[in-house]
Amino acid sequence: MAYLDHAATTPMHPEAVAAMTEALSTTGNASSLHTSGRRARRAVEEAREDIADALGARPSEVLFTGGGTESDNLAVKGVYWARAGKRRVLASAVEHHAVLDAVEWLEQQGAEVTWLPADGVGRVSAETVAEALDDDVALVTTMWANNEVGTINPVHDIAALCAERGVPFHTDAVQAVGAVPVHFAESGASALTMTGHKVGGPYGVGVLLLARDVKCAPLLHGGGQERDVRSGTLDVPSIVGLARAVRIAVQEQEQRAAELVALREELISSVRAVVPDVVVNGDPVDRLPGNAHLTFPGCEGDSLLMLLDARGVECSTGSACTAGVAQPSHVLLAMGVEPSLARGSLRFSLGHTSTRADVEKLADLIGPVVERARTAGLAGMRRSRKVVKQ
Amino acid sequence: MAYLDHAATTPMHPEAVAAMTEALSTTGNASSLHTSGRRARRAVEEAREDIADALGARPSEVLFTGGGTESDNLAVKGVYWARAGKRRVLASAVEHHAVLDAVEWLEQQGAEVTWLPADGVGRVSAETVAEALDDDVALVTTMWANNEVGTINPVHDIAALCAERGVPFHTDAVQAVGAVPVHFAESGASALTMTGHKVGGPYGVGVLLLARDVKCAPLLHGGGQERDVRSGTLDVPSIVGLARAVRIAVQEQEQRAAELVALREELISSVRAVVPDVVVNGDPVDRLPGNAHLTFPGCEGDSLLMLLDARGVECSTGSACTAGVAQPSHVLLAMGVEPSLARGSLRFSLGHTSTRADVEKLADLIGPVVERARTAGLAGMRRSRKVVKQ
Repeated sequence: MAYLDHAATTPMHPEAVAAMTEALSTTGNASSLHTSGRRARRAVEEAREDIADALGARPSEVLFTGGGTESDNLAVKGVYWARAGKRRVLASAVEHHAVLDAVEWLEQQGAEVTWLPADGVGRVSAETVAEALDDDVALVTTMWANNEVGTINPVHDIAALCAERGVPFHTDAVQAVGAVPVHFAESGASALTMTGHKVGGPYGVGVLLLARDVKCAPLLHGGGQERDVRSGTLDVPSIVGLARAVRIAVQEQEQRAAELVALREELISSVRAVVPDVVVNGDPVDRLPGNAHLTFPGCEGDSLLMLLDARGVECSTGSACTAGVAQPSHVLLAMGVEPSLARGSLRFSLGHTSTRADVEKLADLIGPVVERARTAGLAGMRRSRKVVKQ
Repeated sequence: MAYLDHAATTPMHPEAVAAMTEALSTTGNASSLHTSGRRARRAVEEAREDIADALGARPSEVLFTGGGTESDNLAVKGVYWARAGKRRVLASAVEHHAVLDAVEWLEQQGAEVTWLPADGVGRVSAETVAEALDDDVALVTTMWANNEVGTINPVHDIAALCAERGVPFHTDAVQAVGAVPVHFAESGASALTMTGHKVGGPYGVGVLLLARDVKCAPLLHGGGQERDVRSGTLDVPSIVGLARAVRIAVQEQEQRAAELVALREELISSVRAVVPDVVVNGDPVDRLPGNAHLTFPGCEGDSLLMLLDARGVECSTGSACTAGVAQPSHVLLAMGVEPSLARGSLRFSLGHTSTRADVEKLADLIGPVVERARTAGLAGMRRSRKVVKQ
């Protein structure tokens, strides 16, 4: 099996599994005052320090959540609520649905939303933000790196613009952490979302880095954990596993990125060798090392995915979170890709367990698979023309 | 170490640890369409069926969340939002803070809240609900069993009253599942909250049982998982571990309850033997098998807790989620307990790893510990009188 879907989820690092497994058999609610509770609390605070250190944040800026979707929702809604009186939200049109749908919900609640356009490679420029920014903006949110096409945004420039105006800036860095250098303080962002299962850590745990001077109303009310911004019993084993994974991912980032870029280029050139009209999407330079997003004209992405899967290659047509949805990707549409071409796209994403053998397996299969998908596509078109005639 | 704080968190069942650990090393986003994704999805759906079966619900009624706090917040806010036009919320005054604070937040947003009083044992009667109920009520929420004093509420009767009016009824059953028989369909509740780490499962995963005909707006927006009510990547390993734990807890419930009741009665009588003026709180009959909530007149609960902890007995002064807060418990105050007595209370909670040796250890220690806490309390009173004089 060649697993080329690391952007959907990547295997846990064995060290993170070991750390977490050990913690699973240890009892103690981190809010309890007794010895077991204090031991659990110490494990959480050590993990918090580790993560802060790895990501260029202060420990008090690390808020543990239940994952990327929750962090995104908390940042978008919580910061918006805390900016009472400010009604405008600037959000890029190519955000992950966890941001996109949270912003749309705020719009239904009365927020005035400006969708920041992306260019042909999926980038949101600082100029675009500058044009839309004014003193009534409650929040700007643009992702660090796009989860579908892999393009990296100029988040430092966008953060600087926002800082000049005193407007909080949130960035969804779910795909960026461990893949490119991410330093919270140097980025200038007010809030940053990351999640465990994209960096070799567990599911069900994420982080919102929230700068000390940024106010954020809670989404989940209760026991008052995490600076009163995120109530809920702290998930000690997952937090321990997350910290271990973040530490390893960040330590190995540079070396890993070099390897993945080489592997990705090999993947692209080997596919192009057999499918000459393949289109490579996203920014060719400022992109995630492990991401290759390819359009196969005349094919349906779902057919390609299933044909490859049947032959032992796993990839996706876009975000796993919207898999099964028949509509073309909102990211590709925002980039100006024709809907029919958008539907013929596949995302191959490499990660820490990827090997040259995975890429070679794809290279061996992609030619016949594309041919078969094109034949099926043409047959389908003929069938639908026939239907139209009737 | 005698761990008498199972209501705060209980050790994971070794079988749940094993199931979860195995799943931690398996890759696949349950939303992905390829083989690994479908395998992950299958594991989730089998877990969903297991949990539904164990709790008397349909699989489609099981929504996975990040834990009890999230389930409570989702039920309270989501059902309220979905009942547009209805503004009243009835909530018991003795709810866990995850419900209490969510309701208070709705109140700030314009909801009209009626706090249902509890009687002297902490019970919310069906009559109390009946008096407050009318057609403008959006939601009624009362817990199945109280997390501090252990009293069980007449949830079936309350559910029936609500059903007559067509008003959704949510019950926080975090402490009830595995401790007493919980059958969702027979209870008549519209929504029920439970969480993993109170039943021998993992932290960071919970369930909201949501009846098919009950509308609930999402708290977390995004990929549209879980009937579009709870977005976020499904935490496959935790869900697998949760299902195993729920199955075991429910299967062993009757036998375990009998054992824990015997152990609890032994605990109470052995404490009373050395501290004759100890007060036993909560309902003496309709109560959680493992809960003994005791007031030691003339003592500070925190002092008792620390003195016991130093000698190897772990317990709590109330909810772990509000541990460290110096105020007396809102539950005890709602029951009419004097603040000074409320502050002198300890919760001992037994669970699946509890033994007679744990209870004997407490019995050996409690006499001298109470004596010492009383002396310290008197000295403290003298000191504070002196301060007042000055």
